[in-house]
Amino acid sequence: MQISKRGLDIQASPIRKLKPFADAAMARGTHVYFINIGQPDIETPPAVWDAIKNFDERVLSYGPAQGFPEVRQSIADYFAEYGIALTADEIIITVGGSEAIHYAFSVVSDPGGEIIVFEPFYTNYNGFASFADVKLVPVTLRAEDGFRLPPQKEIESRITAKTRAILINSPSNPTGVVYSREETKRIVDLVKKHNLYLIADEVYKEFVYDGLSHTSVLEFEDILDRVIVVDSISKRFSCCGARIGALITRNPDIYQAALKFAQTRLCPPTVEQMGALAAYRMGKDYFEPVRKEYERRRDVLCSGLSDYPGIILHKPSGAFYVNVKLPVRNTEHFVQWMLTDFSLDDQTVMTAPSQGFYATPGKGLDEVRIAYVLKEEDLRKAIRVFIAGLEKYQSLF
Amino acid sequence: MQISKRGLDIQASPIRKLKPFADAAMARGTHVYFINIGQPDIETPPAVWDAIKNFDERVLSYGPAQGFPEVRQSIADYFAEYGIALTADEIIITVGGSEAIHYAFSVVSDPGGEIIVFEPFYTNYNGFASFADVKLVPVTLRAEDGFRLPPQKEIESRITAKTRAILINSPSNPTGVVYSREETKRIVDLVKKHNLYLIADEVYKEFVYDGLSHTSVLEFEDILDRVIVVDSISKRFSCCGARIGALITRNPDIYQAALKFAQTRLCPPTVEQMGALAAYRMGKDYFEPVRKEYERRRDVLCSGLSDYPGIILHKPSGAFYVNVKLPVRNTEHFVQWMLTDFSLDDQTVMTAPSQGFYATPGKGLDEVRIAYVLKEEDLRKAIRVFIAGLEKYQSLF
Repeated sequence: MQISKRGLDIQASPIRKLKPFADAAMARGTHVYFINIGQPDIETPPAVWDAIKNFDERVLSYGPAQGFPEVRQSIADYFAEYGIALTADEIIITVGGSEAIHYAFSVVSDPGGEIIVFEPFYTNYNGFASFADVKLVPVTLRAEDGFRLPPQKEIESRITAKTRAILINSPSNPTGVVYSREETKRIVDLVKKHNLYLIADEVYKEFVYDGLSHTSVLEFEDILDRVIVVDSISKRFSCCGARIGALITRNPDIYQAALKFAQTRLCPPTVEQMGALAAYRMGKDYFEPVRKEYERRRDVLCSGLSDYPGIILHKPSGAFYVNVKLPVRNTEHFVQWMLTDFSLDDQTVMTAPSQGFYATPGKGLDEVRIAYVLKEEDLRKAIRVFIAGLEKYQSLF
Repeated sequence: MQISKRGLDIQASPIRKLKPFADAAMARGTHVYFINIGQPDIETPPAVWDAIKNFDERVLSYGPAQGFPEVRQSIADYFAEYGIALTADEIIITVGGSEAIHYAFSVVSDPGGEIIVFEPFYTNYNGFASFADVKLVPVTLRAEDGFRLPPQKEIESRITAKTRAILINSPSNPTGVVYSREETKRIVDLVKKHNLYLIADEVYKEFVYDGLSHTSVLEFEDILDRVIVVDSISKRFSCCGARIGALITRNPDIYQAALKFAQTRLCPPTVEQMGALAAYRMGKDYFEPVRKEYERRRDVLCSGLSDYPGIILHKPSGAFYVNVKLPVRNTEHFVQWMLTDFSLDDQTVMTAPSQGFYATPGKGLDEVRIAYVLKEEDLRKAIRVFIAGLEKYQSLF
């Protein structure tokens, strides 16, 4: 009687594993600034709360496996604002973007297949790869290059007969990098040339700064049948706990296969779909002040960190993360030490060691991911405490 | 560029696939009695709605991967009312019972492993088996035997070196059978003897009639480390759309592995967990009038059908389904014909062909599952229309 290999091998959340040390710090009365996780402090829009509270039915019943038609239509309308034509029947509502990733992996690959991914990447791709028994084949990006895409040859060298798809995530968690149209086009060319699927996690599509704009893979008409896009309301509308996302594809065979996976779990949450409906119907204008707020925070964080000797940080233009190289040997030790041994004016800071965002063992040991999810004033305090901690740590180790 | 084998092989919902014919009937103005799916018409308790509407936070944020502690504690308290001692740390809140089934399969077995199941069974076990790439090995039950367990030898004959678990579901969907303590004990003995896990889907535990009581596998202290129980608020509290269930295990290794799967999808829905908290806190007394209502419906349905010549139906004591053998050759054709070609006073009936509840090809061809989820008056009308349709069909085919 054993636990399955996949149950043993699947990673524990590297983001959550240091949490007990943070809990202990708080129990000692230390204030902890949490800039380790992507939980925004932005208020969930009143329209979302109203939709949830005004849901008026007698029976909280099952909805369709693919989600309510009006919710799917609201997503199509939302993409139309970006000049992307979709129908409701090209959209499946999923339990968070998470489930869409799981379905995408499972539809494009059988157990043993390979998916190319650029590391550092969103750590839960690892979990879903284990769950779906597919292998993530990493192409390593470098802090020194600002985590931009490497030359085409380097990506192509990782493609094998087992490769089923390339997975991209722009704007990127954890690097904050926004791929240019040219970079996106390079990936589009690769999937065409090598006959692969393209999975694009675009959940941060509005989180783009410096006057840049996000290029969706849905804009490339010549690969429509190859594309699966992952969307989510979690970050965009500060609805992380709603667990509403979407899988978008114009390939009817992919759609039908994903729908069958969706049918096994009956339907996404009914009440929270009403919240999602209200959120998508707010349209893209809602996001403008939120975007400005994050851009300001990004500036505060980057200017607060970049002068420190030994820190390598190319100011990124998207999402709400930076992946920073620090002048320490092992950030897991450093992050833990900040929680167990350091405080300044009874305050400390929790960041996320970056090892968990790499698939290649030994990569990212000297990096942390920082999420700028606190309001400007708190962020400034957190940076001050962080820098003081880093100085102290360097003097000790 | 192909769809994965699992994406092609996974079954489309056999319950939902005839739905378009029902839609067409309704479009013609025919009233359709839906007794094909397990969507109760019982009102969701006001306490659940109040909890959802009174949820008062600024940010709809992530909760813990294993669910909120107070929700897990409310489930432990609920089981305590049945004399079963659990701690909150033996419970993971899942996205419906569905997700708990998926985790259970994935934790006890790697791809290629086998799980013994008694057919006919809840059809979505098939979907999760495909998703998790495990093989369901069916032991066939027979309508003529009232779908009781076969002799121990017959079950043991299906156990191989690849067998990882036995899956039981009592009260059963689709048969309505409630295993006696002796029957449950026989399964307990088998998993001990053959060193297997025992997965028990007990979501219908309160739906037990005729003065019987449900035996939980959690009552057998000698197999505590082998047991995974699937629970759900969907049917019990008429909260199907909430998507809140639970995986329960006292084996810490199973718990930790399941938790890692849970961490990949971050958390279950936050607002709907508040509804679940209110539901579990109502305690078992809430269910008594609901139980009586279903028992009455069961009596109405069984007495309405059992006199018809050629119908084989042993009145079952649980859940809200009966799996009935009809005097027709192919119930898929019959059920479709009822929707496309038959009506009585502009009314017809949709039932579920039972083939989808069997893993063995060719089984269940002359059976339908009927869910008594309509109020008594509607159920009586539905039976009258169903019998009239069956008579007509027999005269034609």
